[in-house]
Amino acid sequence: MLLPELRQIVCELHAELPKNSLVAWTSGNISGRDPETGLVVIKPSGVTFAELTPENMVVVDIDGKIVEGDYKASSDTASHCYIYRHMPDVNGIVHTHSRYATAFATLGREIPCVTTAMSDEFGGPIPCGGFALIGGEEIGQVVVETIKDHRSPSCLLQSHGVFATGPSAEKAVKAAVMTEDNAAIVWTALQMGTPLTIDPADIDKLYDRYQNVYGQ
Amino acid sequence: MLLPELRQIVCELHAELPKNSLVAWTSGNISGRDPETGLVVIKPSGVTFAELTPENMVVVDIDGKIVEGDYKASSDTASHCYIYRHMPDVNGIVHTHSRYATAFATLGREIPCVTTAMSDEFGGPIPCGGFALIGGEEIGQVVVETIKDHRSPSCLLQSHGVFATGPSAEKAVKAAVMTEDNAAIVWTALQMGTPLTIDPADIDKLYDRYQNVYGQ
Amino acid sequence: MLLPELRQIVCELHAELPKNSLVAWTSGNISGRDPETGLVVIKPSGVTFAELTPENMVVVDIDGKIVEGDYKASSDTASHCYIYRHMPDVNGIVHTHSRYATAFATLGREIPCVTTAMSDEFGGPIPCGGFALIGGEEIGQVVVETIKDHRSPSCLLQSHGVFATGPSAEKAVKAAVMTEDNAAIVWTALQMGTPLTIDPADIDKLYDRYQNVYGQ
Amino acid sequence: MLLPELRQIVCELHAELPKNSLVAWTSGNISGRDPETGLVVIKPSGVTFAELTPENMVVVDIDGKIVEGDYKASSDTASHCYIYRHMPDVNGIVHTHSRYATAFATLGREIPCVTTAMSDEFGGPIPCGGFALIGGEEIGQVVVETIKDHRSPSCLLQSHGVFATGPSAEKAVKAAVMTEDNAAIVWTALQMGTPLTIDPADIDKLYDRYQNVYGQ
Repeated sequence: MLLPELRQIVCELHAELPKNSLVAWTSGNISGRDPETGLVVIKPSGVTFAELTPENMVVVDIDGKIVEGDYKASSDTASHCYIYRHMPDVNGIVHTHSRYATAFATLGREIPCVTTAMSDEFGGPIPCGGFALIGGEEIGQVVVETIKDHRSPSCLLQSHGVFATGPSAEKAVKAAVMTEDNAAIVWTALQMGTPLTIDPADIDKLYDRYQNVYGQ
Repeated sequence: MLLPELRQIVCELHAELPKNSLVAWTSGNISGRDPETGLVVIKPSGVTFAELTPENMVVVDIDGKIVEGDYKASSDTASHCYIYRHMPDVNGIVHTHSRYATAFATLGREIPCVTTAMSDEFGGPIPCGGFALIGGEEIGQVVVETIKDHRSPSCLLQSHGVFATGPSAEKAVKAAVMTEDNAAIVWTALQMGTPLTIDPADIDKLYDRYQNVYGQ
Repeated sequence: MLLPELRQIVCELHAELPKNSLVAWTSGNISGRDPETGLVVIKPSGVTFAELTPENMVVVDIDGKIVEGDYKASSDTASHCYIYRHMPDVNGIVHTHSRYATAFATLGREIPCVTTAMSDEFGGPIPCGGFALIGGEEIGQVVVETIKDHRSPSCLLQSHGVFATGPSAEKAVKAAVMTEDNAAIVWTALQMGTPLTIDPADIDKLYDRYQNVYGQ
Repeated sequence: MLLPELRQIVCELHAELPKNSLVAWTSGNISGRDPETGLVVIKPSGVTFAELTPENMVVVDIDGKIVEGDYKASSDTASHCYIYRHMPDVNGIVHTHSRYATAFATLGREIPCVTTAMSDEFGGPIPCGGFALIGGEEIGQVVVETIKDHRSPSCLLQSHGVFATGPSAEKAVKAAVMTEDNAAIVWTALQMGTPLTIDPADIDKLYDRYQNVYGQ
């Protein structure tokens, strides 16, 4: 079996999606790219989170062709692969319809950067890309187009949900969790008035420290 | 004991209701129809979710008469049976008072289709039927009347809650989960403004793909 | 040890409070009255839910005097006892600061009866009593005064929280759970507009059926 | 290994943060001061809650210098130590970005005291301090400045989150939990109108009783 370790990682990370209340039923998916072979491990289509195992994960090549797997790959496979082809530093992608972020997406609105946590992680707003149909690589095109001019590793898709990227599948999951957490805080704040802005120079300082000093 | 397998399935599916935050205490119920015998397995009335077993499920015929069971059947049994008699493709029904969907129901409002996930699963809005009293088959009449002209497998009942149907009990549970998930997203969006509409032609394409291509 | 069975029941019911998201940290308490001896089993003051055992429950007489127990009884003991003295059919009382119900209480507003579930369980609105200080029996006086002219077994206390009663401790817990569940649904509805009213004659029919036909 | 008991306590208390929905992913941290040695046990930087053990906690002196530990200490270590140096009665500090409290913080607004639970625990409003960058002791300065004229053991930090203090790490965690619980209740109330005020003399009485009579 190809890539047993990455299959294990991607399978176990899927458990973080319901645990962090990012998904309902079978919605949402995660993929990881193996930097050596360029192969991608991704969720099978329409399988519940409880039924996922390292063995039923699907392995596809960079063009989305199945290399190993008894199941059909996620409906979003072509879009994941488009992103991997155009963003060489990305080795993990997460897609969700998480509640607060998706609410911003239905209005076609970005999530403004009004907390230090957003400054740390996203270095500015989380942008919202335009509408695209599901099934082909159009969604991947919108994601690449939308985040290429931002520090944010994640973006919203109009009327749809969230795509989060990272240098590993785990980092992409963290970006998806923090996207929803900050969407929820900003939404909650907006119900009481207009959040105070943070000085762009301070956002820069917070982002720089978090990317370079924070953690081990 | 009749229908041991369907008893097991219907019993276990009840655990999905509290797990997905669709019910409080004993509210909510699920039934499944056996396509071969036409018999229906349904929750006993007023029993807590923790106390449900395959053995205490109630088996009724298509007119709601108890065929096997030591307990009274759910208060909604006559309505479940009305739906089964009038919708031959339905073999599973779920009833909940889930929070966001019920909030729409107290206003007599449909849930508008403003996300790709709703387009996929419901192919349009989730409609709201009129008020009906509990205990007889009036609720079943409203459900059949309300969803017969819609793609949506579920509907709201004014001032009451949700009825979700499906070709199996499991599919009906999925419809109930997705009804609440989308109700919550749309409600959250409405607090910030007016969600963007999705082109009806795109809703058609999304619905068609999800019904015919998605999954295994 | 006195009343081992009631100690066990009251202790175990406390686990339902965090499980149903009705309490934070040590807030909230439950008591049960033994119909034969008239003695009351109640939570010790300021002990976390995880530390509760049947043995550390406190037994008091109808005037709130400790009969058995190594711990101080709940701060609300005098109020529980006042309610028991004035409401002979009540054998269980629950107090919480559950979020949505307490929000109504901070505005001094009743929860209007706009769902069939509220009609079933409460037969009308859940009323809100006036402000009272904690520690004596004043809160008990407000509770008795507030619910004596209502069908509702529970009421709100201005700027404070919820008191729920029942013919047993378990029924009182159910009333507390349904109070919060309906408060949340009504609050959610109010953010979108004005809920439709239910015909008072229909509320009467729903209440009558639920009290007399529902359950086993 | 230094301070094995305090390492154990501080490690286990971290589990209360996700359990009480106060944190997402690695955000949030707790420290405890040993009253005898003056040494402080604090969370390592950027480590997930599931990976924390008593052994990977970091021990620092009162100036934030690492005394024992294989990991970098939390980014907020200098601020924790500033608070300990200026508040001799504080032996526990908790920092979170909990949702409702942080929403107030993004508006630079205090949480008004409109519930008996807030009167009990905080004796008045929970104040909001000004903006400060992360990494140095500036946040500690704002915390000390903000809470020194209040009864409240916790405060908000503009555009950032919550700092809660206590005579022990456990009491600080309780203050953090109650800060979020009350922030949520007040926010929920504000969506329906203006909460009723509580007479300042009653707030005084409630605070006095809770600090001196409540608990064991």
